[in-house]
Amino acid sequence: MTAATTGAPGTTANTAAPAYAKTDRTVPSRSRERAHYDRETVHSILDAAYLCHLGFVRDGAPVVLPTLYARVGERLYIHGSTGSRPLLAAGKADPGLPVCVTVTHVDGLVLAKSAFHHSINYRSVVVHGTAYQVTDEAEARTALDALVDQVVPGRAADSRPANAKELAATAVIRLDLEEVSAKIRTGGVNDEPEDLALPYWSGVVPVTRTYGTPIPSEGQDPALTTPDYLAAL
Amino acid sequence: MTAATTGAPGTTANTAAPAYAKTDRTVPSRSRERAHYDRETVHSILDAAYLCHLGFVRDGAPVVLPTLYARVGERLYIHGSTGSRPLLAAGKADPGLPVCVTVTHVDGLVLAKSAFHHSINYRSVVVHGTAYQVTDEAEARTALDALVDQVVPGRAADSRPANAKELAATAVIRLDLEEVSAKIRTGGVNDEPEDLALPYWSGVVPVTRTYGTPIPSEGQDPALTTPDYLAAL
Repeated sequence: MTAATTGAPGTTANTAAPAYAKTDRTVPSRSRERAHYDRETVHSILDAAYLCHLGFVRDGAPVVLPTLYARVGERLYIHGSTGSRPLLAAGKADPGLPVCVTVTHVDGLVLAKSAFHHSINYRSVVVHGTAYQVTDEAEARTALDALVDQVVPGRAADSRPANAKELAATAVIRLDLEEVSAKIRTGGVNDEPEDLALPYWSGVVPVTRTYGTPIPSEGQDPALTTPDYLAAL
Repeated sequence: MTAATTGAPGTTANTAAPAYAKTDRTVPSRSRERAHYDRETVHSILDAAYLCHLGFVRDGAPVVLPTLYARVGERLYIHGSTGSRPLLAAGKADPGLPVCVTVTHVDGLVLAKSAFHHSINYRSVVVHGTAYQVTDEAEARTALDALVDQVVPGRAADSRPANAKELAATAVIRLDLEEVSAKIRTGGVNDEPEDLALPYWSGVVPVTRTYGTPIPSEGQDPALTTPDYLAAL
């Protein structure tokens, strides 16, 4: 299964298979033991984040922009102003805009005895494919709800949905999850045996994302207390 | 000043100017008020991170990979195995490998009354340019020290430097900071006046990166206590 045969608008990924098929682009050139292709692993990494780095080619050169995304089944959605460059390109391009979407979590700093073996514990997903503009209003509304809920689960139902004017100003693109891989480094330090006696501390520093106390907008109804779904972050 | 005229190996960026010159690629198509070009702002965003997303073009398609970087003056350095695809490409390509390097901090979740005005507080830097392989050993060693110190300031001096074999296995590429912009969203929610009475909580949830208690490698000399520089993280 390749993007070329299944990436056309309206097609659906083969969700029956427990893993994404490997392709030349999704098998890394090094650290292959860190690569994972099962949907469960890929989905869990995607579902734990909301910011991706979207890569596309403009005038032959690469462009990488940070942007929000949402996963709905075997699709990713990305949105933006109808005037934004990649979203315009995805709408104009036939057939679609070739993209690479990458999501990365940093989980730890790995400090080895040697500079060479310093590393990072991380989980990442790289999606290759072609993005298409979403033209169906129902699908666009589903995507916009998912984009809000990806950041704060439960929030879409607790906000005013887009009106017609806002919907017209928003472009949504979709990318099917077909050519996908995850890469994970976890665990401790790989010190060389001959380095173990060196007088340098060796170990891992855990890294996490932390949410602070929500700051309410000024002047709002004091009866609007901090929603329960924010406590779950 | 463009990458085409100053990006060749061995040249030095004009560090006298307080800001990077704007180019067609660094002026965003929307939210231009969020764009910044002064070196101080760009450097502060780069110096507060260590993970970037490196974009390049392979077989006409975009590729975005997470990787560590370091800033040394007006240069970024990225390293990897000599067998890694982009590093090989930067070495083979004449003149160099066109890349886009993007660094993003998430600082807050912006929850508006309307789904449309939901946003993220963030600081990002996007660097466009051409990466070249570092062939000078002294520059490579400077870069490798900087890569370790970018993650944990002070750590390079407290670890074993790369030996000849490790140095030979490591490729380093450099990217001059010339075509660069920062983008920052900060502050509160932009609710529409007509939405202010809606019964939805509105506000900002701060997001920070947090470091946990360092976990020492098993079996190391108990006299090696956690280094002071880790407390500064």
